[in-house]
Amino acid sequence: MSYVFGVDVGGTSVKIGLFTGEGKLIEKWSIPTNTDDHGKSILPDIASSVISKKESLGIVDNDVIGVGMGLPGPVDGSGVIRKAVNLHWEDVFNVEEKLASFLPAGMKVRAGNDANVAALGEAWMGAGKGYKNIVMVTLGTGIGGGVIIDGKMVTGITGAAGEIGHIYVGDDPGEACNCGNRGCLEQYASATGIVRLLKKELSLHPEEDTVLRDKELTAKELWDAVKADDPLAVRVAEEFGKYLGSGLSVVAGVLNPEVIIIGGGVSMAGDVIMPYITKNFKEHVFHASAGTKFLRATLGNDGGIYGAAALLI
Amino acid sequence: MSYVFGVDVGGTSVKIGLFTGEGKLIEKWSIPTNTDDHGKSILPDIASSVISKKESLGIVDNDVIGVGMGLPGPVDGSGVIRKAVNLHWEDVFNVEEKLASFLPAGMKVRAGNDANVAALGEAWMGAGKGYKNIVMVTLGTGIGGGVIIDGKMVTGITGAAGEIGHIYVGDDPGEACNCGNRGCLEQYASATGIVRLLKKELSLHPEEDTVLRDKELTAKELWDAVKADDPLAVRVAEEFGKYLGSGLSVVAGVLNPEVIIIGGGVSMAGDVIMPYITKNFKEHVFHASAGTKFLRATLGNDGGIYGAAALLI
Repeated sequence: MSYVFGVDVGGTSVKIGLFTGEGKLIEKWSIPTNTDDHGKSILPDIASSVISKKESLGIVDNDVIGVGMGLPGPVDGSGVIRKAVNLHWEDVFNVEEKLASFLPAGMKVRAGNDANVAALGEAWMGAGKGYKNIVMVTLGTGIGGGVIIDGKMVTGITGAAGEIGHIYVGDDPGEACNCGNRGCLEQYASATGIVRLLKKELSLHPEEDTVLRDKELTAKELWDAVKADDPLAVRVAEEFGKYLGSGLSVVAGVLNPEVIIIGGGVSMAGDVIMPYITKNFKEHVFHASAGTKFLRATLGNDGGIYGAAALLI
Repeated sequence: MSYVFGVDVGGTSVKIGLFTGEGKLIEKWSIPTNTDDHGKSILPDIASSVISKKESLGIVDNDVIGVGMGLPGPVDGSGVIRKAVNLHWEDVFNVEEKLASFLPAGMKVRAGNDANVAALGEAWMGAGKGYKNIVMVTLGTGIGGGVIIDGKMVTGITGAAGEIGHIYVGDDPGEACNCGNRGCLEQYASATGIVRLLKKELSLHPEEDTVLRDKELTAKELWDAVKADDPLAVRVAEEFGKYLGSGLSVVAGVLNPEVIIIGGGVSMAGDVIMPYITKNFKEHVFHASAGTKFLRATLGNDGGIYGAAALLI
């Protein structure tokens, strides 16, 4: 029997999964992310956790193919990470070689950007299973993305492929995106962007009756109100869909994928979000890509560990 | 010595190149495209021309690796073409198998979309030589494009990858694109789009002094006037660059390529066009892709035959 560890490194916790070489998840757990002192113990902590799990299960080194890892920063094709603000890492270094130095000799390490890796996970064992050409967009606090072509993850030259959250979708929203630019998709279609659109709509229509007045404003509340046919909520959903649908039409025009997978916290609202996206997608996409399928992600928070394992399988 | 034929099929003529197996162009010629009777003689004509050239040079069948072909329509990864309006082809059929049936047994045939194939040509022997991750945009009467990842041409699921001319860049120009949509990049940054922007600017400023008044309005005249610092022409160039630069920033955000190559007739105006593109690109691109290099294509009209040959080398 052979084994692979899939590791999804976040700013507060590191999720780890132990998989068989055939891709079956045996066990998953998490450890805290220690960002003290420029996050220098993150990789040793991961190695310790992997080694102790391996030992507790009596798995010998030779049966471990290696450790795959998704990281919150750009990782290029050779394993070099440029920056990972959430981990307090500021150096440019080869993160594959570094983790390998804390592991038994012979264990392979492969790393990628977390959103790219999550796309690979969905392609491998989630909504994208059976498809070879996939675009995934992850709608969370921010927006991440990943591109799979012929079954392989596209990293880009500096590891920044799939940055769909920061494609320019036009219009100046008055405030800059976290990235410093203006008019990024993330400013309209992330959970944060949705709340911003909602606040604006509420302030523009102070007299309008809506179930959202005096509620805590979250993306979840917005979609619940859309399900209840609240007219103000529906208008906000249309605004969300206008930017996300047209933005994805551009991505599809360039890549002509088989399927676009919508993941992240916002996608948990359910299929209610889909028509708002697809209506605007169809309006703007080049006719030859109009058949692109839209699916919701199925692996949830486990997409990262699956994709990380897939880097080695 | 081994040989490859590279064929670039256009609506009025078919360009053919004979290459060595190492990619040296030995000879090039062209034959007319006969679109009569649903273009049914186009493939037999190509086969005849290839066979007679081979015979006239005393090349034996065994020394011919095969025939690569770029076509003005979407061609998927298995060689199926869906439609080629300019060739009067309306059927969905495997164009590789069809051409092979007119050639000596054993000669391989590979086909791709002409703009994708031209990108492969530039990647192989043109401006992109030495780069592995390339986006090419061809600014002609319309706009074509191609994406090369890890040295391989991306075709997309229905052969429609790289349709950069029809990405939505916002705003409604009042008239529909040839594709039926509104707000396609092609409506602003193709030779035709540039003339449209120019006419609009002239009609908005009927009193303004400009070298372009009473000239035949072409993209070439526009760029000549930009070189002469004509203020009206410069404003049109800025408008062109606004759409092309921001559109390409989206493509780079998704693919994080090493280099973007600008080709086609408009690029023949010279380096004068580049700052208008790169200024707007830099304003909107995600910071991790800001280092993307911009180059002008170097193979000119031969990009297609080079790329077609590259399909087999």
